[in-house]
Amino acid sequence: MPQLPPARVGDPVAAIDTPALVLDLDAFGRNLERMANSTPGIRLRPHGKAHKCPDIALMQITAGAVGVCCQKTDEAAAFVDGGVADILVTNEVVSPAKIARLADLAHRATIGVLVDDAANVLALSDAATRAGVTLDAYVEIDVGAHRCGVLPGAPAVELARLVAVAEGLRFRGLHAYHGGAQHLRDPEARAAAIAEAGVLARDTREMIDDAGIHCAIVTGGGTGTWRHERDSGIWNELQPGSYVFMDADYQRNTLTPDEMRFEQSLFVLAGVMSALHGGHAVVDAGLKAFAFDSGLPLVHNRGGTHYAKASDEHGVLELTADAAPLARNDRVWLVPGHCDPTVNLYDWIVGFRAGRVECLWSVAARGALG
Amino acid sequence: MPQLPPARVGDPVAAIDTPALVLDLDAFGRNLERMANSTPGIRLRPHGKAHKCPDIALMQITAGAVGVCCQKTDEAAAFVDGGVADILVTNEVVSPAKIARLADLAHRATIGVLVDDAANVLALSDAATRAGVTLDAYVEIDVGAHRCGVLPGAPAVELARLVAVAEGLRFRGLHAYHGGAQHLRDPEARAAAIAEAGVLARDTREMIDDAGIHCAIVTGGGTGTWRHERDSGIWNELQPGSYVFMDADYQRNTLTPDEMRFEQSLFVLAGVMSALHGGHAVVDAGLKAFAFDSGLPLVHNRGGTHYAKASDEHGVLELTADAAPLARNDRVWLVPGHCDPTVNLYDWIVGFRAGRVECLWSVAARGALG
Repeated sequence: MPQLPPARVGDPVAAIDTPALVLDLDAFGRNLERMANSTPGIRLRPHGKAHKCPDIALMQITAGAVGVCCQKTDEAAAFVDGGVADILVTNEVVSPAKIARLADLAHRATIGVLVDDAANVLALSDAATRAGVTLDAYVEIDVGAHRCGVLPGAPAVELARLVAVAEGLRFRGLHAYHGGAQHLRDPEARAAAIAEAGVLARDTREMIDDAGIHCAIVTGGGTGTWRHERDSGIWNELQPGSYVFMDADYQRNTLTPDEMRFEQSLFVLAGVMSALHGGHAVVDAGLKAFAFDSGLPLVHNRGGTHYAKASDEHGVLELTADAAPLARNDRVWLVPGHCDPTVNLYDWIVGFRAGRVECLWSVAARGALG
Repeated sequence: MPQLPPARVGDPVAAIDTPALVLDLDAFGRNLERMANSTPGIRLRPHGKAHKCPDIALMQITAGAVGVCCQKTDEAAAFVDGGVADILVTNEVVSPAKIARLADLAHRATIGVLVDDAANVLALSDAATRAGVTLDAYVEIDVGAHRCGVLPGAPAVELARLVAVAEGLRFRGLHAYHGGAQHLRDPEARAAAIAEAGVLARDTREMIDDAGIHCAIVTGGGTGTWRHERDSGIWNELQPGSYVFMDADYQRNTLTPDEMRFEQSLFVLAGVMSALHGGHAVVDAGLKAFAFDSGLPLVHNRGGTHYAKASDEHGVLELTADAAPLARNDRVWLVPGHCDPTVNLYDWIVGFRAGRVECLWSVAARGALG
């Protein structure tokens, strides 16, 4: 069962039950606009794996996005149910059950999927044909992430040929995403990684075009590198996701002076359960309230206070001698280490503005693993 | 919305959609029995924060447990809704809204809660009195975890006095749980930590008894140390939780030769999405399918294969040259690093026996953060 929302629309922020995933709607709106206004002449397809929330997807599309990305078949289903008309699953979908579900979704929306294997292309083609639908297929090439994806060049051309003649599939282009580059701290290292990936993507696209197959789209990019893909002349579709929220890990990336800043809009609002000794307080948000793969949460706007350790349902804060003291039932605003898997822990995003709860958005694709 | 179950009862294990949280019911049943049979003359109150599943709580109670523990008010609500009649929230409940919810639950079940603060005792008393119920209250003492809890000795006696005369509350005893001791690798270090905690708990209990207040229960212990609390003559209620499932982190504890072994019964069943190069395969279970606070998942029963890195929805496996190769759609059994926060990522536990799905249990308290 989903949990009950931790607030009602109209409540003051002080009345939100803790812990809660809360969103500063002003900062969120500015992030949304900034990205939408920064991609003239290029397709923006924000990644829905960050928010898992159809309300946000629809706002991104209203602001000019062509649709959204997601990573899982069941995430795609949640977005289709929420009214999103164009979804790219930026992942391989390989099990027969999932392929059948994916094809079924294409009755209700434009559905794209990645391929890196000939047998998988045939399975997708077969399922789409049986369902009487067309699936958009993108050949994933490995441009540095070393996860899925065929090698750039000849193997990608070979797979594109197969897709181009496969019934029920429409070859749309290349997926060239360099995940590891997003979190390189040094801006020159990020630029260099995308420059290298760009050469591979460009050469592969040209080889596919030369083979007489129209490679309409080269899609990729994330919050750490999107402007490099945008300015490359190679990518013509961008997939940033975290920019709407931001997190402690992305804040650790060094930016060049001219680089666009996105604001921290997403927080976990936690409550103090116990504060018996000076220098020590315990909040109600621990290992089940944050993902810890990218480090501990950061304490927001409270000098001399840091989140020192977590257990399942406790977070221990340490305070320096000159920090403002904390008492039982005080609220602490925390910045998640990594937004995507943290959002996945919550059923609701509580949007606030000017001190009041303005909206409750369902994290409809929370837990959508299949 | 909760996700659909990844299997149906009667399905072969090979038909379970991945990734899925799967439970070997034979191993699980042996774990359940072993603990139940190892605590003669002592109350067993297993911790429900590990499983969040009323079906499992009721099986534990059928096997002799007096009830279960949990950590959150909304977890307690899920267990009450699931038919559990006796629940101890092993945590401070401090916000007015949660206190009101907790008192309301006491109309339907025996509800206990911890206290470490005088003002909180008065707030609980007030809410219980208004609701016309009695809440069981336990004074939490800090025996080494350094989270919540008053200091042992005089501060605990003072708080016990306050509870004893507070309308709507029944003083039941002491909560003395040493969380950090559970994961000390060396068995002698675990024994020493609990011996030290025991002195503090015993002395405090005696001081409370000497003050003319009956300290009926000393409760605590976990999967790493439970036999030390059991054999201490001090604790008379035990709270282990993870023993039913086990995880990679608990497997790293060194046990003495005579120490009881619990079996790994809980796995994440993952599917291979891509396996293009020798030595490398990618599964569909990443940062949203496991908690990573206690390290990476372990690959089960597949020599030369290890889970090398995770991104949000991908897990990269590395294989040695002599490892059995992996192909697209192969299944891999993975042992979570830390069971509690991993279970919290799933809506369903898929129980299997003899190669078939035998049950689908709802993780009813998943996401119960409030």
